[in-house]
Order: sequence, then C-alpha cells, then structure tokens
Amino acid sequence: MTAADDVFGQSPGASTDDVARLAGVGIATVFRHFATKTELLEAVLTLRLERIRDRALELAGSDDPGPAFFEFFTQVVSESASKLAIAEALTAAGAAAGEEAREAGRGMREAFSGLLTAAQKAGAVRADAEMPEVYALLIGASRGATAAKLDPETRDRMLALIYDGLKPRR
Amino acid sequence: MTAADDVFGQSPGASTDDVARLAGVGIATVFRHFATKTELLEAVLTLRLERIRDRALELAGSDDPGPAFFEFFTQVVSESASKLAIAEALTAAGAAAGEEAREAGRGMREAFSGLLTAAQKAGAVRADAEMPEVYALLIGASRGATAAKLDPETRDRMLALIYDGLKPRR
Repeated sequence: MTAADDVFGQSPGASTDDVARLAGVGIATVFRHFATKTELLEAVLTLRLERIRDRALELAGSDDPGPAFFEFFTQVVSESASKLAIAEALTAAGAAAGEEAREAGRGMREAFSGLLTAAQKAGAVRADAEMPEVYALLIGASRGATAAKLDPETRDRMLALIYDGLKPRR
Repeated sequence: MTAADDVFGQSPGASTDDVARLAGVGIATVFRHFATKTELLEAVLTLRLERIRDRALELAGSDDPGPAFFEFFTQVVSESASKLAIAEALTAAGAAAGEEAREAGRGMREAFSGLLTAAQKAGAVRADAEMPEVYALLIGASRGATAAKLDPETRDRMLALIYDGLKPRR
C-alpha cells in the first residue's frame, strides 16, 4: 500500500507492475489483494482520505484551536495535488470512489467542521463564516493550487490572503 | 456558434448533431465549418475566453477600478462551470486548447492584471497582493465553485470571504 501510494501519488497513470516493483513483490501478489488497478487506486485514495481525517481528529484535541485549524487547512491544500490526481485517475477509469473512500471523506468533513467551530469559539476565525463557504474555500484552494501547479511560495501567499479573509474583522 | 456555446455549456458530452438541431441547420453545414467535434469545442472555448477578455478590457476603462475588479472576479467565477466543462471535454478528447484559445487566455490574464493594478492604485485592493497569488485565487474560486457545485448563495458567501482577504488591512 505504501508503494502504491508513492507510485500513484507521483504518476496516477502508472501500472500495477510499477507498484509491485517498488514494493519488491511479484505482480501476482498485488493482484491477489486487488483484482484490478481500479481497486488498488480506490484503496490508495481511501488511505489518503483516512490519513487526512485522522490528522483532523488529532488536531481537534489541540489546546490551541486557531493554529490547529489553519495548520489543517494548509496541510490539505499542500497534499491535494496527489490526492486529486488519484481521484481523477479513478474517474478516468470510469469508477466512482467506493463506499470506504466516501465514508473517509465524510469523516474528514465532520472533523474539519469541528476544527472550524473550535477556532471560531477561540476567536481565531470570524464567527459569521459558515461551514459550506469555508469548505468551498478549502476545495477551491486545493484545486487552484493543483490546476495552476503553484510553487510552494505562491501557494503560501495565496493561503495568507485566504486566511486574512477568515480572521475576525477588527 | 451560439448554439454550440449553449449546447456544450450545458452538456459538454453533447453531439455535433445536437448543436446542428439547436442551430436549425443540417449537420453537413456544421461539418463544413468544423471538421470534427474537437474543432467545434475549441472554437467555443476560444469564444468564451475572448468574451471574458473583452469584458476585462471594457471594465479596465471604468472610472471606479475597485468595483470593476471585484465585478470581473465575480463574473469569471460565476461563468466558470460551463467554461471548465468545455475545457475538460477537450482534454478528454485528447486535445489541448489550440493557439487561438491560448492567445485569448493570455489576453484575459493581462487584462486581469491591469484591473488588479488599477484597483490597488485606487486603494480598493491591498498593495502587497501580487498577481500570481491573486490569479491563483481566481482559478481556485472558479474550480472550487465548479467542483463543489455551489449554489449561488454559498458561492457569493465564499467570494465575500475572499474579497475581505483582498481588501487593505485597517
């Protein structure tokens, strides 16, 4: 799974063979667990979504909800390029994300909503920003960074503008 | 062309036949001008990009550069769903945007940069925001609105957060 995550994160058009090679196992071993490349892609996407969700849940326990919210936002945007690439490879293969990936996605949104509420209570995010538009911003920043192939510096400057819009008015 | 713009803006997977029917002409007439559906898609995409560029150039002549900048930003995001759909249909057909579409895209970016500079001089947009990150925001807001299929109200609330981040600090 780690090999698959590496390979597909870099080049979603890679073959199952490439995955097996990096994992140092025979291709038969990969196919014993995943009947098709689509199944393998789905498993990798689910793993990525679960990791992001777990990071959100971990940050939700933070004593400092403001930085926790912004750290999570930054992390999702930074990692979006490979996650989106995998999701798009699935779509191109004619497959929708399976139930497990959708469940991980739901868990991620819930955890993000929790981080937002806590950051608002702490006065780090304006109280009048609601989940739908803040989530839309997260998706937009992720897709924008990916589509425009932003270098990290421009990405961080874009995020700084977004964060200023999310902070309470003075 | 108007028929093609309507048809592909709504459903990029539509056939050349659908375009001909809406235009009230025979399919032979369409194929006389555009040898393939890909050529027709390219022409429609170019037309859309040219319209957006022309709108930017028109707004650049405004006496009130602040509202002109934000109006243009809002318009691009609002119209992005169908434009992106056409661009993606082209990619799916294995074609890149042709030279004319790229030229229109370049003209659009230049005009947007002019609107940004004028809005900054007028004090409506913070002076420390540079074109790369502001353009990334425009792309992100457009892609976010499209990917999340935002209703107009949520889209406007998302834009309001972005605009607050772009306004000068007080």
